[in-house]
Amino acid sequence: MQQSTKALLRLREMILSGELGIDERLSEPRLVERIAVSRTPIRVALVRLEHEGLLEALPSGGYKIRMFDKQDIFDAIELRGTLEGLVARRAAENRPTRAALADLARPLATLDRILARERLSEDDFSHYMSANATFHDALLALAASPVLQESLTRSTAMPFASPSAFVMAQAGLPESRQILNIAQYQHHRLFEAIEAGESSRAEDLAREHARLAKRNLEVVLEHESAASQLPGLQLIKGATAG
Amino acid sequence: MQQSTKALLRLREMILSGELGIDERLSEPRLVERIAVSRTPIRVALVRLEHEGLLEALPSGGYKIRMFDKQDIFDAIELRGTLEGLVARRAAENRPTRAALADLARPLATLDRILARERLSEDDFSHYMSANATFHDALLALAASPVLQESLTRSTAMPFASPSAFVMAQAGLPESRQILNIAQYQHHRLFEAIEAGESSRAEDLAREHARLAKRNLEVVLEHESAASQLPGLQLIKGATAG
Amino acid sequence: MQQSTKALLRLREMILSGELGIDERLSEPRLVERIAVSRTPIRVALVRLEHEGLLEALPSGGYKIRMFDKQDIFDAIELRGTLEGLVARRAAENRPTRAALADLARPLATLDRILARERLSEDDFSHYMSANATFHDALLALAASPVLQESLTRSTAMPFASPSAFVMAQAGLPESRQILNIAQYQHHRLFEAIEAGESSRAEDLAREHARLAKRNLEVVLEHESAASQLPGLQLIKGATAG
Amino acid sequence: MQQSTKALLRLREMILSGELGIDERLSEPRLVERIAVSRTPIRVALVRLEHEGLLEALPSGGYKIRMFDKQDIFDAIELRGTLEGLVARRAAENRPTRAALADLARPLATLDRILARERLSEDDFSHYMSANATFHDALLALAASPVLQESLTRSTAMPFASPSAFVMAQAGLPESRQILNIAQYQHHRLFEAIEAGESSRAEDLAREHARLAKRNLEVVLEHESAASQLPGLQLIKGATAG
Repeated sequence: MQQSTKALLRLREMILSGELGIDERLSEPRLVERIAVSRTPIRVALVRLEHEGLLEALPSGGYKIRMFDKQDIFDAIELRGTLEGLVARRAAENRPTRAALADLARPLATLDRILARERLSEDDFSHYMSANATFHDALLALAASPVLQESLTRSTAMPFASPSAFVMAQAGLPESRQILNIAQYQHHRLFEAIEAGESSRAEDLAREHARLAKRNLEVVLEHESAASQLPGLQLIKGATAG
Repeated sequence: MQQSTKALLRLREMILSGELGIDERLSEPRLVERIAVSRTPIRVALVRLEHEGLLEALPSGGYKIRMFDKQDIFDAIELRGTLEGLVARRAAENRPTRAALADLARPLATLDRILARERLSEDDFSHYMSANATFHDALLALAASPVLQESLTRSTAMPFASPSAFVMAQAGLPESRQILNIAQYQHHRLFEAIEAGESSRAEDLAREHARLAKRNLEVVLEHESAASQLPGLQLIKGATAG
Repeated sequence: MQQSTKALLRLREMILSGELGIDERLSEPRLVERIAVSRTPIRVALVRLEHEGLLEALPSGGYKIRMFDKQDIFDAIELRGTLEGLVARRAAENRPTRAALADLARPLATLDRILARERLSEDDFSHYMSANATFHDALLALAASPVLQESLTRSTAMPFASPSAFVMAQAGLPESRQILNIAQYQHHRLFEAIEAGESSRAEDLAREHARLAKRNLEVVLEHESAASQLPGLQLIKGATAG
Repeated sequence: MQQSTKALLRLREMILSGELGIDERLSEPRLVERIAVSRTPIRVALVRLEHEGLLEALPSGGYKIRMFDKQDIFDAIELRGTLEGLVARRAAENRPTRAALADLARPLATLDRILARERLSEDDFSHYMSANATFHDALLALAASPVLQESLTRSTAMPFASPSAFVMAQAGLPESRQILNIAQYQHHRLFEAIEAGESSRAEDLAREHARLAKRNLEVVLEHESAASQLPGLQLIKGATAG
């Protein structure tokens, strides 16, 4: 692994796990020492994490860990949904061939099979998340736009904005099954809309689909046991107090 | 001409021209006498004009002329725009062939030719209105839906909601040229969106296009000379006072 | 009951129940005899039912029963959804007061209580339909527009376009519970969007909500036992053969 | 000026002006020499310009200048329009106070005054661009969301996606006046929609407004004299041949 990749991964992990003090300027020399790479890769990693939205630049130079309030997270989810809406719209307008649609239909069928089970094990949850990611990747491929792909990738890098941010944390909660059923209903309608070239409907569905993450966040924050499993919880202002 | 058609046309004309007293119950016997048809065709014409929105049924039986306030007219325009948006969306989703698109391109080119003139004569205005109607009819044909066609036809029957309601009245006004230019710009974008299968964009454009009628209404009501040429002006509450 | 009301109700019933031959010109004298009212109320009822979309005028004069294919019904549902979308958008833009929102919250809570039951009796279904109607009426009241109200009322008069068209027929089907859960999820999101003034989201949700009726229609037509309970089934081309 | 800022500005300028060879790996030592800063600021500037979308990372390490085809630029414009649509939607939903709306009304009035002139000087164009930027900044302020602000800022950093990318290049073209009139018409409607809390309409208008940049690009590329004034022209595949 390259030094710069190592620095980036380790630094991101340290931020999300709470190893670094919030509300204070990050010390470059100390990071050099703890991560054991030289100064340039640390500097580059800091720049990248600022772009990702995990760090904020201080007016005096240097960086500190960025804190989020609930509205920031909701905005990040709305932003992701808006971009996924654009992707779905474009996918529908591209009028995909049967063969291209099959790449979307396969993970959809897998999700149906998983959700047909009466109870979901932790393994089922993992399979769900993986098939879900395949479905959304296939959607992105149908949009066939490097510019949109980059933009969406960037928007999901922000903590808590990712589609899977809350899924594992809520695996054990009673509300989670109903949320997965709704999500799968939306997946099916999205498929229908793209197949029929209904780009306006596809956009609306993708937006509303992303908003499930807001409900997930609320459900997780309401249950202390679930919240404690959420990576990066301490980055949400006031959340640890709950 | 059938008795029922005669009764309908004459009665509508009497309402719009102000020949009948507003705010009073219409007398069937008097209408029978003035229009010179028997009672059943009058009764049928009254029912039809209630459906069109020109008459309202009285709780005690019978009908009176319906009055509109500005908000009613704005709502009727918004309603028409929403239906035209649905038509445009459907047209884009149907992915029309080159040949079908040509029916839309022809009136568009005619409109371009008319608007290339420095000043528009009254004849130019008439040609504009006719090519404009052809363009919108072609759009409706591309949607290929009897249900949507009926619904849109009904929504334009309401006085002042029709696309051409204000065009003649404002022909002489300085603002009118700029409004026609904007309208034609929107026609071109609508054509582009339908050609590209961008159904979401086509819907949005058609909605905003219809809202030009709101501006037209405001412009006409601001100019006494223009307002006096507006058929049915006396049906707008408070408009004659202006 | 007035003669004209009697004629209208009885004639509508005769059409939906299959008492009248399809594909033939309706005979006015025979209707006069069977319904036992005079000719003018029959004539007026025929005009009204043409406006409702149950009859079509023949070029030679007179009327015959209108037949629908599946696409017509889908278009009528899409049309209703588009109008309900406009109503929901307007409701959100009107920024209703707490008190006005309570009229929407009450039937929502009733629906929650009904759906909390493990199995739904036929009575539960009736209560569901009634609370559902109250919810949608409250939505319409929040839009506060006579023009939109009329237009929506007209669009639901068309057979099979009404929100409740398929609910009773499918009461006994296994799919029906899942559809009701989705519907209620959408009701809650619609409430949220209107409360927050998110008019764009409210519109999208109302549209997608109406599209549940398409799924209902498909589910009902797939089950012979359910289809046979559907009033007006014989008006759908090819449906009885299934 | 800090070394890292100097490196970033100079490197961006070198890319857009065509000083660096396209299609070859950028040499860090040569950049260190030409820009006269040390290696770390060069490295950081390269990372930032990759995030901006001006550079692409090579699989073998290092960077090369990114080339765009017309579809990429159209996608970047559509992306920006989608984000501006979200900003406008949010602004409308926030129901700005009179005072907050005044910040939007002021640049709008300035733009009206400039466009009232029969011919626009180069100075007028500069004032137009500055008032236009003020208008769009005020819109962003009304959305009151740091997350959306960041995202929009990032999307306009991409070359050719910026609202003002083509304005100066086309200042002398006959089509430019008509495009400015349309743009200002859209600004007024956007103001109206935000004032009325019509968030759905505000979103649609902002999207269509951004699409004017596509027309601008096409107009500029059609005129060799205008295209030659476009910074970064050589980054568009096939454009220099025109």
